[in-house]
Amino acid sequence: MKKLIERIKKDGKVYPGDILKIDNFLNHQVDVKLMDEIGEEFYRLFKDKEVDKILTIESSGIAIASSASRCFGYVPVVYAKKTVAANMAKDAYECEEHSYTRNIEYTVQVAKQFLSENEKVLILDDFLANGEAMRALINICEQAKAKVVGCGAVVGKIYQPGEKLIKSLGYDVKILARVKSMSDDGQIEFEEEEE
Amino acid sequence: MKKLIERIKKDGKVYPGDILKIDNFLNHQVDVKLMDEIGEEFYRLFKDKEVDKILTIESSGIAIASSASRCFGYVPVVYAKKTVAANMAKDAYECEEHSYTRNIEYTVQVAKQFLSENEKVLILDDFLANGEAMRALINICEQAKAKVVGCGAVVGKIYQPGEKLIKSLGYDVKILARVKSMSDDGQIEFEEEEE
Repeated sequence: MKKLIERIKKDGKVYPGDILKIDNFLNHQVDVKLMDEIGEEFYRLFKDKEVDKILTIESSGIAIASSASRCFGYVPVVYAKKTVAANMAKDAYECEEHSYTRNIEYTVQVAKQFLSENEKVLILDDFLANGEAMRALINICEQAKAKVVGCGAVVGKIYQPGEKLIKSLGYDVKILARVKSMSDDGQIEFEEEEE
Repeated sequence: MKKLIERIKKDGKVYPGDILKIDNFLNHQVDVKLMDEIGEEFYRLFKDKEVDKILTIESSGIAIASSASRCFGYVPVVYAKKTVAANMAKDAYECEEHSYTRNIEYTVQVAKQFLSENEKVLILDDFLANGEAMRALINICEQAKAKVVGCGAVVGKIYQPGEKLIKSLGYDVKILARVKSMSDDGQIEFEEEEE
Protein backbone atom coordinates (compact mmCIF):
# COMPACT_ATOMS: atom_id res chain seq x y z
CA MET A 1 0.00 0.00 0.00
CA LYS A 2 1.95 2.92 -1.40
CA LYS A 3 0.50 5.67 0.75
CA LEU A 4 1.22 3.74 3.92
CA ILE A 5 4.79 2.99 2.86
CA GLU A 6 5.36 6.67 2.07
CA ARG A 7 4.05 7.56 5.50
CA ILE A 8 6.30 5.06 7.25
CA LYS A 9 9.28 6.39 5.29
CA LYS A 10 8.37 9.92 6.35
CA ASP A 11 7.41 9.35 10.01
CA GLY A 12 8.82 5.96 11.02
CA LYS A 13 11.72 5.92 13.45
CA VAL A 14 14.09 3.03 13.91
CA TYR A 15 15.34 2.36 17.44
CA PRO A 16 17.99 -0.05 18.72
CA GLY A 17 16.64 -3.56 19.22
CA ASP A 18 15.03 -3.63 15.77
CA ILE A 19 12.16 -1.40 16.86
CA LEU A 20 10.12 0.52 14.31
CA LYS A 21 8.14 3.33 15.89
CA ILE A 22 5.19 4.70 13.98
CA ASP A 23 3.33 5.99 16.98
CA ASN A 24 2.52 9.36 15.48
CA PHE A 25 -0.08 7.88 13.15
CA LEU A 26 -0.76 4.29 14.21
CA ASN A 27 -0.41 3.36 17.84
CA HIS A 28 -0.43 6.32 20.18
CA GLN A 29 -1.55 9.17 17.98
CA VAL A 30 -3.90 7.84 15.29
CA ASP A 31 -4.50 9.24 11.81
CA VAL A 32 -8.07 8.04 11.38
CA LYS A 33 -8.21 9.01 7.71
CA LEU A 34 -5.26 6.72 7.02
CA MET A 35 -6.93 4.01 9.15
CA ASP A 36 -9.99 4.30 6.89
CA GLU A 37 -7.79 3.86 3.82
CA ILE A 38 -6.15 0.86 5.46
CA GLY A 39 -9.62 -0.52 6.19
CA GLU A 40 -10.52 -0.13 2.51
CA GLU A 41 -7.36 -1.92 1.48
CA PHE A 42 -8.17 -4.86 3.77
CA TYR A 43 -11.65 -4.89 2.26
CA ARG A 44 -10.17 -5.04 -1.24
CA LEU A 45 -7.99 -7.98 -0.19
CA PHE A 46 -10.60 -9.97 1.75
CA LYS A 47 -13.96 -8.93 0.33
CA ASP A 48 -14.65 -12.38 -1.15
CA LYS A 49 -14.27 -14.13 2.20
CA GLU A 50 -17.77 -13.49 3.57
CA VAL A 51 -16.33 -12.09 6.78
CA ASP A 52 -18.74 -12.32 9.76
CA LYS A 53 -16.49 -10.76 12.35
CA ILE A 54 -13.15 -9.01 12.72
CA LEU A 55 -10.89 -10.14 15.54
CA THR A 56 -8.00 -7.98 16.73
CA ILE A 57 -6.03 -7.33 19.91
CA GLU A 58 -5.84 -4.35 22.22
CA SER A 59 -4.85 -1.63 21.98
CA SER A 60 -3.27 -0.84 18.67
CA GLY A 61 -5.50 -3.09 16.58
CA ILE A 62 -8.74 -1.42 17.60
CA ALA A 63 -8.68 1.65 15.36
CA ILE A 64 -7.66 -0.47 12.37
CA ALA A 65 -10.39 -3.03 12.97
CA SER A 66 -13.03 -0.31 13.47
CA SER A 67 -12.18 1.29 10.15
CA ALA A 68 -12.23 -2.08 8.42
CA SER A 69 -15.57 -3.04 9.99
CA ARG A 70 -17.25 -0.12 8.26
CA CYS A 71 -16.01 -1.33 4.85
CA PHE A 72 -17.26 -4.85 5.54
CA GLY A 73 -20.80 -3.62 6.21
CA TYR A 74 -20.28 -3.00 9.92
CA VAL A 75 -19.45 -6.55 10.95
CA PRO A 76 -18.76 -6.72 14.71
CA VAL A 77 -15.23 -6.14 15.94
CA VAL A 78 -13.94 -8.19 18.85
CA TYR A 79 -10.71 -7.17 20.48
CA ALA A 80 -8.82 -9.71 22.54
CA LYS A 81 -7.62 -8.53 25.91
CA LYS A 82 -4.03 -8.84 27.00
CA THR A 83 -3.16 -9.35 30.60
CA VAL A 84 0.04 -10.09 32.46
CA ALA A 85 -1.83 -11.66 35.36
CA ALA A 86 -2.74 -15.26 34.68
CA ASN A 87 -6.31 -14.99 35.91
CA MET A 88 -7.83 -18.05 34.28
CA ALA A 89 -11.31 -16.97 33.27
CA LYS A 90 -13.61 -19.91 32.77
CA ASP A 91 -15.80 -18.01 30.34
CA ALA A 92 -12.92 -17.03 28.07
CA TYR A 93 -10.72 -18.65 25.47
CA GLU A 94 -7.11 -18.02 26.37
CA CYS A 95 -3.70 -18.35 24.80
CA GLU A 96 -0.21 -17.38 25.96
CA GLU A 97 1.74 -14.88 23.89
CA HIS A 98 5.41 -14.08 24.31
CA SER A 99 6.17 -10.44 23.59
CA TYR A 100 9.69 -10.16 22.16
CA THR A 101 9.56 -6.35 22.33
CA ARG A 102 8.89 -6.33 26.06
CA ASN A 103 10.21 -9.79 26.90
CA ILE A 104 7.15 -10.83 28.91
CA GLU A 105 4.36 -13.38 28.64
CA TYR A 106 0.84 -12.15 28.10
CA THR A 107 -2.37 -14.07 28.43
CA VAL A 108 -4.61 -13.23 25.48
CA GLN A 109 -8.32 -13.61 26.23
CA VAL A 110 -11.58 -13.53 24.32
CA ALA A 111 -14.90 -14.09 26.09
CA LYS A 112 -16.47 -17.29 24.78
CA GLN A 113 -19.74 -15.60 23.91
CA PHE A 114 -18.02 -13.47 21.25
CA LEU A 115 -16.74 -16.27 19.02
CA SER A 116 -19.00 -18.95 17.60
CA GLU A 117 -18.51 -22.20 15.79
CA ASN A 118 -18.18 -21.74 12.02
CA GLU A 119 -18.17 -17.96 12.27
CA LYS A 120 -15.93 -16.55 9.51
CA VAL A 121 -13.30 -14.47 11.22
CA LEU A 122 -10.83 -12.00 9.72
CA ILE A 123 -7.88 -11.37 12.04
CA LEU A 124 -6.27 -7.93 11.79
CA ASP A 125 -3.36 -6.43 13.69
CA ASP A 126 -0.91 -3.56 13.41
CA PHE A 127 2.42 -5.44 13.32
CA LEU A 128 3.50 -8.87 12.19
CA ALA A 129 7.04 -9.72 13.29
CA ASN A 130 7.46 -12.95 15.22
CA GLY A 131 3.78 -13.67 14.74
CA GLU A 132 3.13 -14.35 18.41
CA ALA A 133 0.02 -12.19 18.73
CA MET A 134 -1.49 -13.48 15.49
CA ARG A 135 -0.72 -17.07 16.39
CA ALA A 136 -2.50 -16.55 19.72
CA LEU A 137 -5.56 -15.08 17.97
CA ILE A 138 -5.64 -18.01 15.54
CA ASN A 139 -5.34 -20.47 18.42
CA ILE A 140 -8.28 -18.81 20.15
CA CYS A 141 -10.38 -19.07 16.97
CA GLU A 142 -9.45 -22.74 16.72
CA GLN A 143 -10.57 -23.30 20.31
CA ALA A 144 -13.89 -21.67 19.40
CA LYS A 145 -14.11 -23.70 16.17
CA ALA A 146 -14.51 -20.43 14.33
CA LYS A 147 -13.13 -20.30 10.77
CA VAL A 148 -10.21 -17.95 10.20
CA VAL A 149 -10.79 -16.73 6.63
CA GLY A 150 -7.75 -14.47 6.54
CA CYS A 151 -5.12 -12.58 8.48
CA GLY A 152 -3.99 -9.04 7.79
CA ALA A 153 -1.20 -6.93 9.22
CA VAL A 154 -0.60 -3.26 8.54
CA VAL A 155 3.18 -3.56 8.80
CA GLY A 156 5.22 -6.74 8.56
CA LYS A 157 8.90 -7.32 9.19
CA ILE A 158 9.24 -9.98 6.56
CA TYR A 159 12.75 -10.90 7.67
CA GLN A 160 11.26 -12.21 10.92
CA PRO A 161 9.44 -15.56 11.16
CA GLY A 162 5.82 -14.32 11.63
CA GLU A 163 4.59 -14.47 8.05
CA LYS A 164 6.04 -17.95 7.43
CA LEU A 165 4.69 -19.19 10.75
CA ILE A 166 1.12 -18.11 9.96
CA LYS A 167 1.33 -19.59 6.45
CA SER A 168 2.71 -22.84 7.85
CA LEU A 169 -0.39 -23.06 10.04
CA GLY A 170 -2.40 -23.01 6.82
CA TYR A 171 -3.69 -19.46 6.87
CA ASP A 172 -3.71 -16.71 4.28
CA VAL A 173 -1.85 -13.60 5.44
CA LYS A 174 -1.64 -10.20 3.77
CA ILE A 175 0.77 -7.46 4.80
CA LEU A 176 0.19 -3.89 3.63
CA ALA A 177 3.73 -2.61 4.15
CA ARG A 178 6.44 -5.26 3.82
CA VAL A 179 9.59 -4.17 5.63
CA LYS A 180 12.60 -5.95 4.14
CA SER A 181 15.26 -4.39 6.34
CA MET A 182 15.89 -1.62 8.82
CA SER A 183 19.27 -0.13 9.56
CA ASP A 184 20.45 1.64 12.69
CA ASP A 185 20.81 4.92 10.79
CA GLY A 186 17.04 4.89 10.28
CA GLN A 187 16.82 3.57 6.72
CA ILE A 188 13.78 1.38 6.14
CA GLU A 189 13.62 -0.77 3.03
CA PHE A 190 10.40 -2.22 1.68
CA GLU A 191 9.69 -5.12 -0.62
CA GLU A 192 7.86 -4.31 -3.81
CA GLU A 193 4.12 -4.48 -3.45
CA GLU A 194 2.20 -7.56 -4.60
CA GLU A 195 -0.94 -6.88 -6.57
CA MET B 1 -29.06 9.50 23.46
CA LYS B 2 -32.14 7.33 23.10
CA LYS B 3 -30.74 4.60 20.91
CA LEU B 4 -27.81 4.09 23.25
CA ILE B 5 -30.06 3.93 26.30
CA GLU B 6 -32.27 1.37 24.58
CA ARG B 7 -29.21 -0.70 23.79
CA ILE B 8 -27.95 -0.57 27.37
CA LYS B 9 -31.40 -1.60 28.62
CA LYS B 10 -31.37 -4.51 26.19
CA ASP B 11 -27.79 -5.72 26.54
CA GLY B 12 -26.41 -4.24 29.77
CA LYS B 13 -25.76 -6.58 32.66
CA VAL B 14 -25.45 -5.51 36.27
CA TYR B 15 -22.94 -7.36 38.42
CA PRO B 16 -22.27 -7.19 42.16
CA GLY B 17 -20.00 -4.30 43.10
CA ASP B 18 -21.99 -1.79 41.06
CA ILE B 19 -20.58 -3.05 37.78
CA LEU B 20 -22.38 -2.37 34.50
CA LYS B 21 -21.21 -4.65 31.73
CA ILE B 22 -21.86 -3.58 28.17
CA ASP B 23 -19.03 -5.51 26.62
CA ASN B 24 -21.08 -6.95 23.79
CA PHE B 25 -21.20 -3.62 21.99
CA LEU B 26 -18.74 -1.23 23.63
CA ASN B 27 -15.62 -2.64 25.24
CA HIS B 28 -14.82 -6.14 24.12
CA GLN B 29 -17.09 -6.70 21.18
CA VAL B 30 -17.70 -3.39 19.40
CA ASP B 31 -20.73 -2.34 17.37
CA VAL B 32 -18.99 0.09 15.06
CA LYS B 33 -22.25 1.42 13.59
CA LEU B 34 -23.34 2.46 17.08
CA MET B 35 -19.88 3.96 17.68
CA ASP B 36 -20.39 6.07 14.55
CA GLU B 37 -23.73 7.28 15.88
CA ILE B 38 -22.08 8.07 19.21
CA GLY B 39 -19.39 9.98 17.32
CA GLU B 40 -22.07 12.00 15.56
CA GLU B 41 -23.73 12.79 18.86
CA PHE B 42 -20.45 14.05 20.32
CA TYR B 43 -20.03 16.14 17.19
CA ARG B 44 -23.49 17.64 17.68
CA LEU B 45 -22.61 18.51 21.28
CA PHE B 46 -19.11 19.90 20.71
CA LYS B 47 -19.08 21.10 17.10
CA ASP B 48 -18.69 24.77 18.09
CA LYS B 49 -15.54 24.13 20.11
CA GLU B 50 -13.02 24.15 17.22
CA VAL B 51 -11.60 20.82 18.33
CA ASP B 52 -8.00 20.25 17.17
CA LYS B 53 -7.50 16.84 18.71
CA ILE B 54 -9.38 14.11 20.54
CA LEU B 55 -7.74 12.59 23.61
CA THR B 56 -8.90 9.28 25.01
CA ILE B 57 -7.47 6.36 26.96
CA GLU B 58 -6.79 2.77 26.02
CA SER B 59 -8.44 0.45 25.28
CA SER B 60 -12.13 1.12 25.40
CA GLY B 61 -11.96 4.79 24.36
CA ILE B 62 -10.25 4.11 21.06
CA ALA B 63 -13.19 2.97 18.92
CA ILE B 64 -15.31 5.86 20.24
CA ALA B 65 -12.62 8.45 19.56
CA SER B 66 -11.97 7.07 16.07
CA SER B 67 -15.62 7.36 15.14
CA ALA B 68 -15.79 10.89 16.56
CA SER B 69 -12.63 11.96 14.73
CA ARG B 70 -14.29 11.30 11.40
CA CYS B 71 -17.18 13.62 12.30
CA PHE B 72 -14.77 16.37 13.35
CA GLY B 73 -13.04 16.33 9.97
CA TYR B 74 -10.50 13.66 10.88
CA VAL B 75 -8.77 15.48 13.72
CA PRO B 76 -5.99 13.31 15.19
CA VAL B 77 -6.85 10.92 18.01
CA VAL B 78 -4.36 10.43 20.82
CA TYR B 79 -4.91 7.59 23.22
CA ALA B 80 -3.23 7.70 26.58
CA LYS B 81 -1.47 4.55 27.68
CA LYS B 82 -2.16 2.90 30.97
CA THR B 83 0.54 1.01 32.77
CA VAL B 84 0.81 -0.58 36.17
CA ALA B 85 4.59 -0.32 36.15
CA ALA B 86 5.75 3.13 37.23
CA ASN B 87 8.30 3.50 34.48
CA MET B 88 8.81 7.26 34.54
CA ALA B 89 9.24 8.20 30.94
CA LYS B 90 10.97 11.52 30.55
CA ASP B 91 9.33 12.25 27.22
CA ALA B 92 5.80 11.71 28.50
CA TYR B 93 3.26 13.56 30.58
CA GLU B 94 2.09 11.31 33.36
CA CYS B 95 -0.64 11.17 35.96
CA GLU B 96 -1.68 8.55 38.49
CA GLU B 97 -5.17 7.07 38.25
CA HIS B 98 -6.83 4.92 40.87
CA SER B 99 -9.10 2.28 39.34
CA TYR B 100 -11.97 1.58 41.72
CA THR B 101 -13.15 -1.34 39.58
CA ARG B 102 -9.82 -3.16 39.84
CA ASN B 103 -8.50 -1.48 42.98
CA ILE B 104 -5.10 -0.66 41.53
CA GLU B 105 -3.10 2.42 40.61
CA TYR B 106 -2.34 3.06 36.98
CA THR B 107 0.12 5.48 35.50
CA VAL B 108 -1.52 7.26 32.58
CA GLN B 109 0.94 8.47 29.95
CA VAL B 110 0.88 10.63 26.84
CA ALA B 111 4.07 11.28 24.88
CA LYS B 112 4.90 14.99 25.06
CA GLN B 113 5.12 15.35 21.30
CA PHE B 114 1.40 14.57 20.93
CA LEU B 115 0.00 17.46 23.00
CA SER B 116 0.87 21.08 22.32
CA GLU B 117 0.34 24.37 24.09
CA ASN B 118 -3.03 25.94 23.26
CA GLU B 119 -4.19 22.94 21.27
CA LYS B 120 -7.96 22.56 21.69
CA VAL B 121 -8.57 19.10 23.06
CA LEU B 122 -11.81 17.16 23.37
CA ILE B 123 -11.55 14.37 25.93
CA LEU B 124 -13.74 11.30 25.30
CA ASP B 125 -14.10 8.10 27.27
CA ASP B 126 -16.49 5.20 27.63
CA PHE B 127 -17.44 5.45 31.32
CA LEU B 128 -17.63 8.29 33.82
CA ALA B 129 -18.09 7.06 37.39
CA ASN B 130 -15.54 8.30 39.91
CA GLY B 131 -13.96 10.42 37.23
CA GLU B 132 -10.44 9.18 37.87
CA ALA B 133 -9.52 8.49 34.26
CA MET B 134 -10.96 11.77 33.01
CA ARG B 135 -9.29 13.73 35.80
CA ALA B 136 -5.96 12.15 34.81
CA LEU B 137 -6.48 13.09 31.15
CA ILE B 138 -7.35 16.67 32.14
CA ASN B 139 -4.28 16.85 34.37
CA ILE B 140 -2.11 15.71 31.47
CA CYS B 141 -3.61 18.40 29.20
CA GLU B 142 -2.92 20.98 31.90
CA GLN B 143 0.70 19.85 32.11
CA ALA B 144 0.93 20.31 28.34
CA LYS B 145 -0.84 23.69 28.54
CA ALA B 146 -3.34 22.37 26.01
CA LYS B 147 -6.90 23.72 26.28
CA VAL B 148 -9.56 21.18 27.23
CA VAL B 149 -12.62 22.41 25.32
CA GLY B 150 -14.93 19.66 26.50
CA CYS B 151 -15.27 16.22 28.04
CA GLY B 152 -17.64 13.51 26.88
CA ALA B 153 -18.53 10.12 28.29
CA VAL B 154 -20.69 7.51 26.62
CA VAL B 155 -22.13 6.23 29.90
CA GLY B 156 -22.14 8.03 33.23
CA LYS B 157 -23.12 6.78 36.66
CA ILE B 158 -24.45 10.12 37.81
CA TYR B 159 -24.85 8.96 41.41
CA GLN B 160 -21.08 8.71 41.63
CA PRO B 161 -18.82 11.75 42.02
CA GLY B 162 -17.19 11.89 38.55
CA GLU B 163 -19.45 14.39 36.83
CA LYS B 164 -19.36 16.84 39.74
CA LEU B 165 -15.61 16.45 40.06
CA ILE B 166 -14.99 17.35 36.41
CA LYS B 167 -17.38 20.30 36.61
CA SER B 168 -15.72 21.50 39.83
CA LEU B 169 -12.43 21.60 37.93
CA GLY B 170 -14.11 24.04 35.56
CA TYR B 171 -14.76 21.79 32.59
CA ASP B 172 -17.81 21.11 30.50
CA VAL B 173 -18.88 17.48 30.55
CA LYS B 174 -21.56 15.72 28.50
CA ILE B 175 -22.83 12.23 29.18
CA LEU B 176 -24.79 10.37 26.50
CA ALA B 177 -26.49 7.84 28.79
CA ARG B 178 -27.06 9.05 32.36
CA VAL B 179 -27.45 6.10 34.72
CA LYS B 180 -29.40 7.16 37.79
CA SER B 181 -29.45 3.83 39.57
CA MET B 182 -28.74 0.15 39.14
CA SER B 183 -30.21 -2.62 41.22
CA ASP B 184 -28.86 -6.09 41.88
CA ASP B 185 -31.76 -7.66 39.99
CA GLY B 186 -30.41 -5.99 36.85
CA GLN B 187 -32.71 -2.97 36.58
CA ILE B 188 -31.00 0.12 35.19
CA GLU B 189 -32.68 3.47 35.55
CA PHE B 190 -31.75 6.48 33.43
CA GLU B 191 -32.20 10.20 33.92
CA GLU B 192 -34.24 11.96 31.27
CA GLU B 193 -32.13 13.24 28.41
CA GLU B 194 -31.00 16.87 28.33
CA GLU B 195 -31.39 18.60 24.99
